[in-house]
Amino acid sequence: MFMQNNLVLVNIGNHFDLKASVFQAPRRGIYSFSFHVVKVYNRQTIQVNLMQNDYPVISAFAGDQDVTREAASNGVLLMVEREDRVYLKLERGTLMGGWKYSTFSGFLVFPL
Amino acid sequence: MFMQNNLVLVNIGNHFDLKASVFQAPRRGIYSFSFHVVKVYNRQTIQVNLMQNDYPVISAFAGDQDVTREAASNGVLLMVEREDRVYLKLERGTLMGGWKYSTFSGFLVFPL
Amino acid sequence: MFMQNNLVLVNIGNHFDLKASVFQAPRRGIYSFSFHVVKVYNRQTIQVNLMQNDYPVISAFAGDQDVTREAASNGVLLMVEREDRVYLKLERGTLMGGWKYSTFSGFLVFPL
Repeated sequence: MFMQNNLVLVNIGNHFDLKASVFQAPRRGIYSFSFHVVKVYNRQTIQVNLMQNDYPVISAFAGDQDVTREAASNGVLLMVEREDRVYLKLERGTLMGGWKYSTFSGFLVFPL
Repeated sequence: MFMQNNLVLVNIGNHFDLKASVFQAPRRGIYSFSFHVVKVYNRQTIQVNLMQNDYPVISAFAGDQDVTREAASNGVLLMVEREDRVYLKLERGTLMGGWKYSTFSGFLVFPL
Repeated sequence: MFMQNNLVLVNIGNHFDLKASVFQAPRRGIYSFSFHVVKVYNRQTIQVNLMQNDYPVISAFAGDQDVTREAASNGVLLMVEREDRVYLKLERGTLMGGWKYSTFSGFLVFPL
């Protein structure tokens, strides 16, 4: 049973659009998701949403103007149906200066 | 066995007192807890403690004066006895400007 | 099977060198690691690397000059071989002002 767990290990790698890193759930269950999206040399405020099937679930912000690198971080346990898609969306701001060191991870805590 | 896992998915929802969102452990084991408490339009420094039965285990801080939203985040693996209570406490500062986007989650990693 | 999980619960406790808190994997599998390294009264920028067998996997930064306590946080799911060593390394800056409230945790998500 446990081997049916699925995992995501991604350094977000798509340009100006975080949407390409989509996790699609292999089965129904409770999943743990967390993300740290880092903005680099960028004075804008960014807002990152964790999306489930095009609906925002949680958000995180990074808005410090005087800091080289700052992370918008959050995490959540989610009830996910089979084939639900979970991904990050940059709701506000850009990642023009880069997003190196960003992470997005999720795993099945237990199946339902 | 795995189905006996328990979970918390809360957006903290009680006014000026985080204490109402209490997780009570259904069984002995190692639990993973993490939290992101966001202060909004608030120049105070906040300190958030993760409490286990009225004792602080870990703390997190948010103290930037010039940032609209900032999170006090931390996480930990805890050995928890059955019926232990785990919750967040605002040790310092207030959440007067709001705490939207805050999360507190925990799950059983393995039973003991 | 589940009882063979291993866990780390550490408040980083070695001076100026985070390397002493090494997690050595008891078995092959996917592990979840996360850390929050807090700098206190310290105007330097710190960079913290999560190391796997002396290679950096992810990094986090804290560089705000005007804030008393700030955390460099990140987390990741890692494929770990038996006896791999995972630890934190302070790649840049010092923790001269202290690192109280820092955490480093990891657990086996599922064996391989």
